Amino acid sequence: MTKSALKQLLHGDRLATAAGAHNPLTAALVEEAGFDVVWASGLEISASMGVPDANVLSVTECLSTAAAMAARVGIPVLADCDSGFGGITNVIHMVQDYEAAGIAGVCIEDKTFPKLNSFVAGPQQLVPIEDFAGKIAAAVASRRSADFVVVARIEAFIAGHGLEEALRRARAYELAGADALLVHSKLAVPDEVVAFCDHYTGDVPVVAVPTTYASTTMDELHAAGVSLAIYANQGLRSAIASTRETFAAILRHGCASAVESRLVPLSDVFGLQGTARMLEAEKRFEQVGRGVAAQVDADLAFDWAAAHAG
Amino acid sequence: MTKSALKQLLHGDRLATAAGAHNPLTAALVEEAGFDVVWASGLEISASMGVPDANVLSVTECLSTAAAMAARVGIPVLADCDSGFGGITNVIHMVQDYEAAGIAGVCIEDKTFPKLNSFVAGPQQLVPIEDFAGKIAAAVASRRSADFVVVARIEAFIAGHGLEEALRRARAYELAGADALLVHSKLAVPDEVVAFCDHYTGDVPVVAVPTTYASTTMDELHAAGVSLAIYANQGLRSAIASTRETFAAILRHGCASAVESRLVPLSDVFGLQGTARMLEAEKRFEQVGRGVAAQVDADLAFDWAAAHAG
Amino acid sequence: MTKSALKQLLHGDRLATAAGAHNPLTAALVEEAGFDVVWASGLEISASMGVPDANVLSVTECLSTAAAMAARVGIPVLADCDSGFGGITNVIHMVQDYEAAGIAGVCIEDKTFPKLNSFVAGPQQLVPIEDFAGKIAAAVASRRSADFVVVARIEAFIAGHGLEEALRRARAYELAGADALLVHSKLAVPDEVVAFCDHYTGDVPVVAVPTTYASTTMDELHAAGVSLAIYANQGLRSAIASTRETFAAILRHGCASAVESRLVPLSDVFGLQGTARMLEAEKRFEQVGRGVAAQVDADLAFDWAAAHAG
Amino acid sequence: MTKSALKQLLHGDRLATAAGAHNPLTAALVEEAGFDVVWASGLEISASMGVPDANVLSVTECLSTAAAMAARVGIPVLADCDSGFGGITNVIHMVQDYEAAGIAGVCIEDKTFPKLNSFVAGPQQLVPIEDFAGKIAAAVASRRSADFVVVARIEAFIAGHGLEEALRRARAYELAGADALLVHSKLAVPDEVVAFCDHYTGDVPVVAVPTTYASTTMDELHAAGVSLAIYANQGLRSAIASTRETFAAILRHGCASAVESRLVPLSDVFGLQGTARMLEAEKRFEQVGRGVAAQVDADLAFDWAAAHAG
Repeated sequence: MTKSALKQLLHGDRLATAAGAHNPLTAALVEEAGFDVVWASGLEISASMGVPDANVLSVTECLSTAAAMAARVGIPVLADCDSGFGGITNVIHMVQDYEAAGIAGVCIEDKTFPKLNSFVAGPQQLVPIEDFAGKIAAAVASRRSADFVVVARIEAFIAGHGLEEALRRARAYELAGADALLVHSKLAVPDEVVAFCDHYTGDVPVVAVPTTYASTTMDELHAAGVSLAIYANQGLRSAIASTRETFAAILRHGCASAVESRLVPLSDVFGLQGTARMLEAEKRFEQVGRGVAAQVDADLAFDWAAAHAG
Repeated sequence: MTKSALKQLLHGDRLATAAGAHNPLTAALVEEAGFDVVWASGLEISASMGVPDANVLSVTECLSTAAAMAARVGIPVLADCDSGFGGITNVIHMVQDYEAAGIAGVCIEDKTFPKLNSFVAGPQQLVPIEDFAGKIAAAVASRRSADFVVVARIEAFIAGHGLEEALRRARAYELAGADALLVHSKLAVPDEVVAFCDHYTGDVPVVAVPTTYASTTMDELHAAGVSLAIYANQGLRSAIASTRETFAAILRHGCASAVESRLVPLSDVFGLQGTARMLEAEKRFEQVGRGVAAQVDADLAFDWAAAHAG
Repeated sequence: MTKSALKQLLHGDRLATAAGAHNPLTAALVEEAGFDVVWASGLEISASMGVPDANVLSVTECLSTAAAMAARVGIPVLADCDSGFGGITNVIHMVQDYEAAGIAGVCIEDKTFPKLNSFVAGPQQLVPIEDFAGKIAAAVASRRSADFVVVARIEAFIAGHGLEEALRRARAYELAGADALLVHSKLAVPDEVVAFCDHYTGDVPVVAVPTTYASTTMDELHAAGVSLAIYANQGLRSAIASTRETFAAILRHGCASAVESRLVPLSDVFGLQGTARMLEAEKRFEQVGRGVAAQVDADLAFDWAAAHAG
Repeated sequence: MTKSALKQLLHGDRLATAAGAHNPLTAALVEEAGFDVVWASGLEISASMGVPDANVLSVTECLSTAAAMAARVGIPVLADCDSGFGGITNVIHMVQDYEAAGIAGVCIEDKTFPKLNSFVAGPQQLVPIEDFAGKIAAAVASRRSADFVVVARIEAFIAGHGLEEALRRARAYELAGADALLVHSKLAVPDEVVAFCDHYTGDVPVVAVPTTYASTTMDELHAAGVSLAIYANQGLRSAIASTRETFAAILRHGCASAVESRLVPLSDVFGLQGTARMLEAEKRFEQVGRGVAAQVDADLAFDWAAAHAG
């Protein structure tokens, strides 16, 4: 995977797709399914750790999770970085660390720190435009390669503002150097996102997260002008449902065979872990080791023989 | 949750049950379903990180995951600690660190380091009895509270040995101080475990992991003399199946609404994260803060008035 | 070490003393020297990681460092937690995690997040009293044991305010439940701290950090009413000076013998690492293991003999 | 810093020098002093964490420390990786992770896992040649760039073997692909290392660690044929001595002014942390943010005016 892949996807002719993951295993399933990008979802990761999606997890925990994903998959990982874990200095360190860890890009949003998940009824407070534009500029200036993607997430609709504010912020963040604009909406219809796309006159790709407007199709999003659609949390939500049913069934039936049909076989788990590849490599290098040792023995025997022949 | 809960469960009149988890969220689902114990499964945790179950993950990673589970749930967490992450010194540090982290107990197995998952065809090598008995003795001597549980896992059947070797090891590990004996088997029938229970004449509880003999019921295990049954990996295996289907369906249908019926609602995710409790606490302490500030203002006004009245 | 030790020290008849540390080794040196308390210094820890003292390190990194100290020493560890790593929710999680990790107490300061080291010329911004009082109340309410100490650090003098503001905040934080008040000052004389002590009419112990007013003695601080004096960064600053000279001398002389007199012997390092204790424990448990194995062999031989005798 | 720098240093005309560090700060002091390479010392790192140098620290902890050093300095970091943290699979993951973290190279030694520090009287057990040759081959095959350096550390002298065994192992490890050979010795004279250099007929550079033979000069090592001399633990040992004296003096004198002359000023600490650079960057990006916001305001005013003019 090269980081530039993400930039190419954002600027491609077709709609690029991403799905949310919360660990390397689910990232591998995103890749396996055929999505273009892994979304290292703040909601999924915090949920997997059993804490609210409100910057309870530190940048250290978010980074290590995203880095482990990037080490596991061959497609780009785009990391949900909330509001950047603090101020400008935090953003600078964040970009340096995420890029060094092999992550393809980060997405930061124009809310205060700590943030609150956009779908939770509670304080959804935007920071002034100039503050967030400063963060975007700092992020862009701190990357080593222009391939590293900085996505500016506009929470204007989430915070109850209208199209005008969203567009004003889009203009500012583009001016500050953002590579893409994620326009978030919690409506059950895509109207806010579509309106944004209709009126946005800038040049950077638009990213959408059709969580609440789930019946909007990829074709419709593409037609509206969206470049990347992120299916941010469906994987986790189905896993919770399935795990719950499995656990309940085991206890209800008093044995595990009742749920076998719902499970992947153990061999599938081993496959996702790369077990056969590991065993094969061990065998290969053990063989190399034995070969080397035999060679040295032979050489030394030859040296000895040669010495005595002299 | 108190650690002694685990010891009580092992010595109770009924079969205690555990289910495998790989992060605090799945640990919460284990608790929610009604299992008695969370099994911090080495297979699940390594699979979730996308690496083989062969001590690729370090003790640091395994500990931090198990500790996060223990912080999230109210039932005991029993941690799968492979062969103890090295030698006697590693076991000593492991016990100290796991106990300090609020974990109820550890399970170590009598295989070499690095170990290989017991269900994988590959080298399954036991260490000499005296070596593992030394580790068990070290573990037991290193805990601060006798409530902390040390489970000795016997891999004799896995490594191709017979009942006699399993019983010999059972006797030794009990003598070394083990609180329970996990007898592992990869047969499709419970015969090895049942035979072990029939012939074991010692005093410590027996733990079984009916992964391959999945149709053996809890009643049958209890009747055989098992004290704790661990459903070690069914949760993860159903989550993989479900996530796969969800991802495929999204791409196949071109939208997420096709999978909505398979998902828990977002509100469930927020609930598992404790979001409402968090918002309520924030509100409460903000109020306390305002109350304190008002009180200080009033006091100072009073002080001022008193001073001027004097 | 019991956590209550810290509370007792704060309320003792004599001046308690703390020194700054940045890892378990320096914490052990603090204990060895005879200080009462280890100060897990934010400045030292961030400096040791080569980053500014401005919340560049996350709570994860600060916590793991302080936890490792607490695992190593027998005296209480008081952790410098800057402004609490965010808002009220962050403070709640911080207190739960620090207490669970065996740390004796935390100190949080009434500045914004991210904070800046108090001795650096730059923005030193206080948060409103009500905000910080809310954090203190949240911290106090989130601990499991009343022995866990919550220190409220007043940065009024650092931020350019006067005695009146410092006292107003002292009153508020005490009302909110703080166990001690750290009054920080960057003057070269102790006047601000002394004035604070003179006019403070509340009941909680006062903590001072005589970094800039270094010539003020412990007796003078005690006489002024200070309960705990923290020598926050002298250890690190001397280590930097000494390491610099050692490195320069090795390169200047072209060999290490030139600096031998400046070094502790390797045996001292091994001693601080607990090496002998480790080797002794390994030997002991290996012996136990051998004893157990011999016993089992003997028992089984006896069983066999008994069976055949029957 | 590019990783190839380390390879160039190993093959340069002059003796390259390294010094041991245990955190990014001491790594920065190594660089500042003029050494060519930072040695991420296993002894120093384990000592700084207060645990024996015997694989008590996990690969996770060693890696994160070395990675933080590499992020802080501009010279190559060579990481002391003990015996490779386990078997071949552990070595493969280790190389992938260390290389991905920006570390210039790793050094692994031909002892068992867990290892014991070479200067400690205790079990010093070599693994068979074929086993370690397999690890070296695995390490070399697992790196992405040939610039990443794999050093094979020969512990034959430490384990009580003679020159013949050291040379046999040298030949094997070179054959397996090692980029350099570290020949360790605990004599007070350089005789073993010099004898090795005299009789070694292979092609890869030799590395020496003159800890016990401290009076051997760089010129003498170079003349003997050594390519890199590592001053592995002098920095830490002088820091311990100095910190001890500083702590004792504060308590003895009852104030910190008594030790001021032994300390670097706070401004030096801030400098090593990059504080001024941070403040400058914050100011600059805040300015950019304000500029962007003003620009957008102006543009929109212009748009509005244009619209109304139409």
